[in-house]
This record gives sequence, C-alpha cells and structure tokens, in this order.
Amino acid sequence: MSEQFLTRTRELIHKKILAEISPDSLIDQAMRYSVLSDSKTIRPALVLASGELNNNLTKNSLITLATAIELIHTYSLIHDDLPCMDDDDIRRGKESSHIKFGEANAILAGDALHDLAFEIISTDKDMNDASKIKAVNILANASGAKGMVLGQHLDIESEKSKENIDLKSMKKIHTLKTGKLIKAAVEMGQIESSLNKAEINMLLEFGSKIGLAFQIFDDILDETGETSELGKRAKSDQKNNKQTYVKVVGIDESAKIANKLLDESINLIDELRVRDKIEPLKSLAKFMVNRKS
Amino acid sequence: MSEQFLTRTRELIHKKILAEISPDSLIDQAMRYSVLSDSKTIRPALVLASGELNNNLTKNSLITLATAIELIHTYSLIHDDLPCMDDDDIRRGKESSHIKFGEANAILAGDALHDLAFEIISTDKDMNDASKIKAVNILANASGAKGMVLGQHLDIESEKSKENIDLKSMKKIHTLKTGKLIKAAVEMGQIESSLNKAEINMLLEFGSKIGLAFQIFDDILDETGETSELGKRAKSDQKNNKQTYVKVVGIDESAKIANKLLDESINLIDELRVRDKIEPLKSLAKFMVNRKS
Repeated sequence: MSEQFLTRTRELIHKKILAEISPDSLIDQAMRYSVLSDSKTIRPALVLASGELNNNLTKNSLITLATAIELIHTYSLIHDDLPCMDDDDIRRGKESSHIKFGEANAILAGDALHDLAFEIISTDKDMNDASKIKAVNILANASGAKGMVLGQHLDIESEKSKENIDLKSMKKIHTLKTGKLIKAAVEMGQIESSLNKAEINMLLEFGSKIGLAFQIFDDILDETGETSELGKRAKSDQKNNKQTYVKVVGIDESAKIANKLLDESINLIDELRVRDKIEPLKSLAKFMVNRKS
Repeated sequence: MSEQFLTRTRELIHKKILAEISPDSLIDQAMRYSVLSDSKTIRPALVLASGELNNNLTKNSLITLATAIELIHTYSLIHDDLPCMDDDDIRRGKESSHIKFGEANAILAGDALHDLAFEIISTDKDMNDASKIKAVNILANASGAKGMVLGQHLDIESEKSKENIDLKSMKKIHTLKTGKLIKAAVEMGQIESSLNKAEINMLLEFGSKIGLAFQIFDDILDETGETSELGKRAKSDQKNNKQTYVKVVGIDESAKIANKLLDESINLIDELRVRDKIEPLKSLAKFMVNRKS
C-alpha cells in the first residue's frame, strides 16, 4: 500500500518539478539532477496523506506543498553531502551533486532549490494568501536556525566528541535534524484544516514521534544496510565518527526505541475521528521504520 | 545625506536582527557575526527610500522587508566567499564566516539566514497576507536560479574563460548577480504602491540601471581600492581571473558606462509625480557609483 502511495507521490512531484525547472542553465540541470532522483519522497507523501484527512486544500495545492518540502529536503542533502560536512559521494544511487557538478555548483543548486520551495508556494494557483503564508512560515521555521540547520550543526559538532553523548542530546539532534521537517510535512497537510485543535495536536505529535523513529531507523540502516540498496554510502556514520542511536545504545535497543515510537505514533492517529481516512498515514508510518533503504 | 540615511538604515536593521536572532547556538552567533557587521546596507536603504514614495506599508513592515533583503544578501556573501567559490578571507572588514567559524558552519549560517528572510516576512505584524506573499515572491525570484544564483554561477564559470567575454555577456552576469536583488529592493518598497503602473515601471527600470551601475563600480573599486578601505580583499577579481567590466573595457570606459547608467536612472525618477519625495533615492543612487568602499 505505502509503496504504491509513494510511487504515485513521486510521479506527482516529478511532474511538478519538470514544470517548475526548465533546464536552461547548468544550475537548473543540477537542481533537476538531485530532485528528480530516486528519492523515497516520504516527506511529500506525508503532506499528501495528512491533507487527505481533510477536504481543505485542492489536490494541486497539496502537490505544491509536497513539492516544496521535497525541494527543501533535497537542498539540505546536497549541502550535507559536501566535503566539509558529511563528505558523501553517493546519494540516491548516483554521484552526489558536488561530485557530478563541482562544489560551487552544488552549493548554488542547493541555494536555488531552497528559493524555489518558497517561490512555488507563492505562485500556487488555488491557495489563498493566508494559507500560503502559513506554509512559508512552517517551512522556514522547520528548516532554519531553530530546526534542521541547527540539527545538522549539532550533528557535525558531535563528531568531535570523543565519548558517546547521552541519549537526551542524541534525541535533540535527531529531532532537529530530521524530526522537525517530518513534523512540518504533517502540519502542511493541515493548513486550512477541518480537524479540531486537539486532533491537530495529536497529528503533530504523531509527526514528531514518527520523525524521530525514522531517523533512528536511518542510523540502523547505515550500520546494517548495503550501499547498493541504500543508494548512499553504508557505514558513513562510522566513517565520520558520527554520534548515532546505534553508537549510543546499540542496534537492538535502537530498534526497540524506534518501534515503540512507531506504536505510540499510530495510537495517536487511531484516536482521530477521521479514522476511516488514516490508512495512508498509518501505512507510511510503518514503512518509515521497516524500510530497506 | 545618503551617509546619514544609510547609518539610520543600519541602526534599524541591526535592531531588528538583534530581536530576531537570539544568540543561543554557534549558528545563531555566526548569523549575527555576518549580518551585524559593517555592511553598507544599500539594499535595505533602497527598500526604505522606495517605500517613502508611498504611504503604503507601515515603517515597521518596510523595516521587515529591508531586513529580509539584507539577510538574503548576507547569506549570498557567506556562500560566495567560500574556498570553492571566490575564496575570500576578508569580508566587511573582518574574517569571512568560513575563516571564523569553519566551512560547514558558514554554509549552515548562510542557509539559516536564507530561511530567516522568509520567516520574518511571514511573521510581520502589520502587513496583510497578500503583501507578504508578494514580498516572498519577489525575493525568491530575484535570488534563485533565474536571478542571483545564476549570476554567481555564470560569474564563476567566466573565470575559466581564457579570452575576455563580450560586453553583452558581462552585462548579463552583473544584472543577474547584483542587479536583480537591487531591483527587488526597489520593488519591495512598492508593495501596495500608491503610484501608477507606468511610474512603478520607471522605478523598476531605475533599480535595474542603478543595480548594474553599482556592480560596475564594484569592479572598479576592486581594481583601484585598498583592502583596508574596501573591507574586503582588493584585487580579488584579478586573483580569480574574474571577468569584469574593468577587464573587458578598462577602468575609464567602465566609469563612463556606470555614470551614464546613473544619469539615466536619475532621469527616470525625476519624471515621477512624487518628485518632492525622491531625494533619498536619488542621493542613494549617486552614492552607489561614487562610494569609496
């Protein structure tokens, strides 16, 4: 079920990207190269699945928001892969952007994807201005200095630490680095929500928990997966002396924590009144902690 | 006159920045370090001076927009200064961000400033949502893959060229790299404009012309100025084998072109009905091609 949902999401996103980025310059081509690659498109799928709980935004607007979050995620991967950051040469099964286009162009392509996320929200045909501004706010807040960027900074800093950091600090890094944008994906689907405040809060809590679980499972995959299957270099965390859940509490305990978070997150959405519509969200959540790549 | 106007602008922008960036993390500190530095704040001053032609937005909203454009400009400088781009170690009279904080943190601080520009627009207290979305659109469009980022890419590519490029290509690079954001500054001041369409177009044309003149004068200063006065490394263009107006047509001809553009730009705003309010804009324009740094 979720595989199908993800495939459909990817098709929709890619169609939108092709319409938004005409491949005129090398920068446009570098943008396309990264964003049209073999992404799992989990964040956009979460936007769509969250949006399906309501009859709020049009499908086209949900696709705009889903694409915007994929653009932000992709720009962050391009920058994270740079030699001065995680120094990863493979991403989504092919050469990282800086290997393919050089460092300068990779940074610029990332910057341009970053702008494009906000630009496509601003030019959406269906959304009203209030919704657009909500989306801009959610996205900028989740990805900036109090969110994803801070997480990536703390993540890199943690590599310098000779001793393992504690679980609380570990949780903070993962929540910022990955959780915030996952939660933002769920929140974007609730712009102009027909759910009540309590339900929206439950959904956001779902987003936080599944976002953390997702990153913990990522740590496990980095340790246990194969490069060919992951589409990125396996054991990259180890190479970078990165602090991960696996390093701090081991694989088994990490899996236990991730699965507990998954259970808790599903319990939360099971309580929503729109129970008949939660299947895509539920199945995505399960996929996020039981995937192979 | 314009010196005073710029000083006042800088005070207003810095006050806003201090309120928006609490210095909790190293990233916050790196953001503050670059954006609270000795900037000329020409772009924000253009927003304010353009806005003064109308009674449209509140002063606070104009300051928000002015700050947003300074944040975008500053993020772009941080990224442009990186070793893989222009490799400049001095900026605004002090160490470049990557020298002070390391490359990874510099990239991240740039990314976070980029987000913050959009975030402060979204949280402005006075502007209506339609105006906010206009501002987001102007900014994203001017700075992205069809604007500033493309200009920076072409600029770097031009360094590989063994022969001088032609004046038309040169103009294109400067227009994209610098002109677009300068024009955007003027345009931001016209959100909810009380001027008519023809007048707004004249103002935008003014922005384009003065933006190009500004960058041409920058080429001249790079060649003739001193590091201590410029606040950045003199003759950096030469070092990078960068294509500049000076390289292509020489100093005298470059100065002639810049001054012609200045005259044309001033003629344009002299024709506005609000002639009694154009003094700040006029005086800024003159400053932009007769400055020492």
